[in-house]
Amino acid sequence: MSETPHRSYRLRELAAELGLNHRGDDSVQVSGVGTLSGAGPSDASFLANPAYREALEHTRAAVVVMTAEAAESYAGNALISANPYADWARLIECLNPPPPPPSGIHASAVVADSAEIAASAWIGPQTFIGDGARLGERVRIGPGCVIDEDVVIGDDSLVHARVCIGGRARLGQRVIVHPGVVIGADGFGLAMDRGRWRKVAQVGSVRIGDDCEIGANTTIDRGAIDDTVLEDDVRIDNQVQIAHNVRIGAHSAIAGCVGIAGSTRIGRYCMIAGASGIAGHLEICDSVIITAMSTVLDSIDQPGEYGSGIPARPHGRWKRLLVRLGQLDDWARRLKRIEQSNKNNGSSRS
Amino acid sequence: MSETPHRSYRLRELAAELGLNHRGDDSVQVSGVGTLSGAGPSDASFLANPAYREALEHTRAAVVVMTAEAAESYAGNALISANPYADWARLIECLNPPPPPPSGIHASAVVADSAEIAASAWIGPQTFIGDGARLGERVRIGPGCVIDEDVVIGDDSLVHARVCIGGRARLGQRVIVHPGVVIGADGFGLAMDRGRWRKVAQVGSVRIGDDCEIGANTTIDRGAIDDTVLEDDVRIDNQVQIAHNVRIGAHSAIAGCVGIAGSTRIGRYCMIAGASGIAGHLEICDSVIITAMSTVLDSIDQPGEYGSGIPARPHGRWKRLLVRLGQLDDWARRLKRIEQSNKNNGSSRS
Amino acid sequence: MSETPHRSYRLRELAAELGLNHRGDDSVQVSGVGTLSGAGPSDASFLANPAYREALEHTRAAVVVMTAEAAESYAGNALISANPYADWARLIECLNPPPPPPSGIHASAVVADSAEIAASAWIGPQTFIGDGARLGERVRIGPGCVIDEDVVIGDDSLVHARVCIGGRARLGQRVIVHPGVVIGADGFGLAMDRGRWRKVAQVGSVRIGDDCEIGANTTIDRGAIDDTVLEDDVRIDNQVQIAHNVRIGAHSAIAGCVGIAGSTRIGRYCMIAGASGIAGHLEICDSVIITAMSTVLDSIDQPGEYGSGIPARPHGRWKRLLVRLGQLDDWARRLKRIEQSNKNNGSSRS
Repeated sequence: MSETPHRSYRLRELAAELGLNHRGDDSVQVSGVGTLSGAGPSDASFLANPAYREALEHTRAAVVVMTAEAAESYAGNALISANPYADWARLIECLNPPPPPPSGIHASAVVADSAEIAASAWIGPQTFIGDGARLGERVRIGPGCVIDEDVVIGDDSLVHARVCIGGRARLGQRVIVHPGVVIGADGFGLAMDRGRWRKVAQVGSVRIGDDCEIGANTTIDRGAIDDTVLEDDVRIDNQVQIAHNVRIGAHSAIAGCVGIAGSTRIGRYCMIAGASGIAGHLEICDSVIITAMSTVLDSIDQPGEYGSGIPARPHGRWKRLLVRLGQLDDWARRLKRIEQSNKNNGSSRS
Repeated sequence: MSETPHRSYRLRELAAELGLNHRGDDSVQVSGVGTLSGAGPSDASFLANPAYREALEHTRAAVVVMTAEAAESYAGNALISANPYADWARLIECLNPPPPPPSGIHASAVVADSAEIAASAWIGPQTFIGDGARLGERVRIGPGCVIDEDVVIGDDSLVHARVCIGGRARLGQRVIVHPGVVIGADGFGLAMDRGRWRKVAQVGSVRIGDDCEIGANTTIDRGAIDDTVLEDDVRIDNQVQIAHNVRIGAHSAIAGCVGIAGSTRIGRYCMIAGASGIAGHLEICDSVIITAMSTVLDSIDQPGEYGSGIPARPHGRWKRLLVRLGQLDDWARRLKRIEQSNKNNGSSRS
Repeated sequence: MSETPHRSYRLRELAAELGLNHRGDDSVQVSGVGTLSGAGPSDASFLANPAYREALEHTRAAVVVMTAEAAESYAGNALISANPYADWARLIECLNPPPPPPSGIHASAVVADSAEIAASAWIGPQTFIGDGARLGERVRIGPGCVIDEDVVIGDDSLVHARVCIGGRARLGQRVIVHPGVVIGADGFGLAMDRGRWRKVAQVGSVRIGDDCEIGANTTIDRGAIDDTVLEDDVRIDNQVQIAHNVRIGAHSAIAGCVGIAGSTRIGRYCMIAGASGIAGHLEICDSVIITAMSTVLDSIDQPGEYGSGIPARPHGRWKRLLVRLGQLDDWARRLKRIEQSNKNNGSSRS
C-alpha cells in the first residue's frame, strides 16, 4: 500500500533495531507498511485503537505492533510494545529513512548578502532570504518561501514550500513548518480614532521553541509589544489562527481550524480539538482538553476536559429543539407558577 | 456590468447555440451578462431563485433565462429552461469563451529534468516543478506554484497561482485548483512518548478524481498510510481543511471554512454548509445535507438534512437563554418533584 | 522589550509632537515601548484597559499614556489623552518611524510589458506582475507575490509577501495586504445539471476601498456577476473567508476565522468577533456587533449586540446539559400535563 520503502528487515532484525520483543516467525521479511486491512504479506501494521481489533483477525500483515495484552489473542507475528503507536512511528522511520538532506543554495533562490546561512543548509528554488536572516546547520527551506529580514531558524529545522516567515521571528531546532504557513504577520491592532480605525504598529515578534510543528496554512501573528510564544514541542495542525501575544505551553497540541484570540495563555500538555475558538486574554492551565467545536470564553484553572459542541441532529428535531430553547424563559415562569400554586393549595389543604 | 465579452449573439443565435426555446424579439443583440437589477439593454440575465422575482419586473436585460412557468407572467424576451441556473452557466461560457490556453514553460520557471510535461501544457512564471512530476495535455500551472516530486496532474487541469502540491498527489482530468491551496502536506499524526510528542511519518498520498474543484487556501493532507481521496466531481470551497485519510464521495460539495477530521468518509451527493465541523472516524452516507455551522460528532446512516447551528439573538436574550441552560438540571428535579407531589396529592384525594 | 527604536525623545518633545499634555519630569528620555509590566526606564507604555490598572502601580516605564482620570491616582510621568489607545498608536509611530520606502523592481521579479508601474513603486524579489496591471505611486509589492492581469492597486498601498491578487481586482489607496491573502479567486458557483456539477463562470470582480487592511491567509472571492466590495477603512483579520458578492460597509472590523457567505451585505461600523459565521443573502444594518463564535442566520435591522456562542463547561456538566436538551420536547408535554391537571383539580376543588 505504501510508497516504495528504502529498507527491508527480517522481523528479528527489526525487533532488535526497535528494542522490542517479538513473537512468531522471526525470519519473515518486512519491507513496507500498511493498515491492518490494507497491508500485504511483506508489510508491517499496528493495532493501537481497540476499535480496529476486528480488522486484526483478517490482516495479511507480516507483523503487527501491539500490546502484550492484545497479542494474547493473536496468533500471527507480533512486535510487543507498551506504546504501540509510538513504536509504530519509530518502525516507519526504520523502513522509510529520510533521504540524505540536500545542501546548498538553488541558483534561482535570492539570498541577501547579509544573511548568514550554514554551509550545511539547503535553500530551495524560487526562495527569498532577507537581510540579516540566520539559518542554522542542516536547515532546509523548500521552494517558494520568503524568509524575511532578521528571522532566525535553528539547526535541523525543515521549512516546507511556500512558507512566509517575517516579523523577526526566531524558530528553535528541529522545527517543522508546513506549506502556506505565515509566521510573524501583524496582529490585529486597531484603535478607533474620531470615526476611523488607526493601525497600532505591531513591534513584538514570534518565538517558537524546539521540536514544534506548524500545519499547512496556519497563521501565527507577531506580538503587539511583547512576543507571541510557542514553547518547546508544541504541535499545531492546519489552518489554526494564533493571534498576537498568545503563549502556548510546552507539549500542547492544537487541532485543525482552531482560533486563539490575542494575549491568551495556554498551559502545558493541553489538547485543543478541531475548530474550537478560544477568546482573548484568558488563562488556560496545564493539562486541559477542549473538545471539538467548543467556545472557550472564560479562563480555566482546573485540569480536565471542557466543551460546548452540540452534536448535529436530524433537521426536524433540531428545529423543534430551537423552538424549545426560545420557550425556556416562558417555562421558567410556568414552573414557578405551578410550584407557587401547589404550595398554596398544599398549605390550604393542610 | 460585466467585463468586456468576447462574443455577441442575436437572441435566436444564442437560443440555437444553447438548444433552448426563446420568446420575444429574436433579433435583439446580446453581448454581456448582468444581474436582473444591474443588466443593461444588451446583457442577458437569469431568474433561478424566486426571491428575485420582483427584480424581474424592473430589469432592462435584453433577455432573461427562466422556467416556462416564470415566463408566463413575464412580457419581455426570455430563454426558456428547465434548469435556468445550469443554462445560465452555459450562456456565460458562450459569451465569455475562455481565451485559447497558453502553452510552454516560462523562462523564470524551474523544472526538474526528470519531470514529464506535455508539450501542450503551460508552466507560469516563478513556478517550480519537481523530479518525476507528470503533467498531462493542456495542463496549466499558474505563477508561483510548487508542484513537488512525483505529483501527477491529468489532462486539461488548471492550477491557479501560488498553489503547493506535494505528497506524491495524483490529480485527475479537468481539475481546478485555486490560489493558496496546499495538497499533500503531512497529516497531524502524533504519538505521546514519555512526555514528548513523536511525529508519525505520513507515507500515504492524495488522490483527486476528475472534475474536482478546490477553493482558495484549502488544505488537503496526505494520508497516514493509505490515501486521502476525493472521488470525481467533488467541489470544495475556500479555506476547507480535509485531514488525512478522509474520503469524499463523488458529486459532494463542501462550502467554505468546513473542517473534516481524519479518516471520516463522506458519501456521494452530500452537501456540507459553511463552517461546519465533522469529527474523525465517522461514516456519513450518501445524500446527507449538513446545515451551516453544525458539529457532526456521530456517523449518519440515513439521507436527509442534519444540523446544530444556533441562530444569533440580541445579546440580552441570548445571555438570559444561557442562564436558563445552566438551570436545566435544577428544572429536571423540580419537574419531577411537582409530578411526584401531584401524584401523591392526587392519590390522597382519590 | 521592543526592537531597537529609530528615534529618541525627551518627554516634553514627545508631548509636543503628539499634541498631548504631560505631567511629571518632562526631561526624561523616551526611546522605546513596552507593556506596563515589561517596560524599562526609557520605554513608554500605556493604560487603555482598566484591567491592567494594577500593573500600573509597578511599572518602571518612563512615561505612561492614560486618561486624565487615570492620571489622578498615578504619581509617575504621564501623557494625558482622551483616547489613550489611539494616541499610543501615534506614539509608536513617532518612536518607530517606518524606514524610507524602497523603490524599483527587483531583478528576479517578472513584470509583463503592458503593466504600468509608478516609478516610485517597489516590486520585490520573485514577484510576478501580469498584463495590464497598474500600480500607483509608492506602492510596495513584497517578495513572492502574484499580481494578475488588469489588477489595479492605489497609491501608497503595501502588499506583503506571497499574496495573490487576481480577478481584475481594484484596490484603493493605503491598503495593507498581509502574507498569504488571496483576492479575486472564483466564487463557489455551481449548478447541478443532470447529476453532475456545472461550474458557473465567475465574471465579477473585487473592489477594495481606501485604508483597508486584510489579514494573513484571508480569502476574498470575486463576484459572480457584480463585484464583491469592501468600502473604505474596512479591517479584516487573519483567515477570514469573504464569499462572492459580499459587501462590507466602511469602518467595519472582522476578527479572525470569520466566514461570510455569498451576497450578504454588512453595514458600516459593524464588528464581527472571531470565528463567527454569517449565512448568505442577509442584510446586517450599521453598528451591529456579533459576539465570538456566533451563527448569524437571519438579517439584522437594529443596531446592537447579537450572539449565539455557548461557553465551554466541564465535560460532565456539558454532557448532562446535552441530555437535558434532548429531553426538552418531553418536558414541554409534562409541563402542559401538570398545568392541565392542576387546572382540573383546581376547578374540581373550587
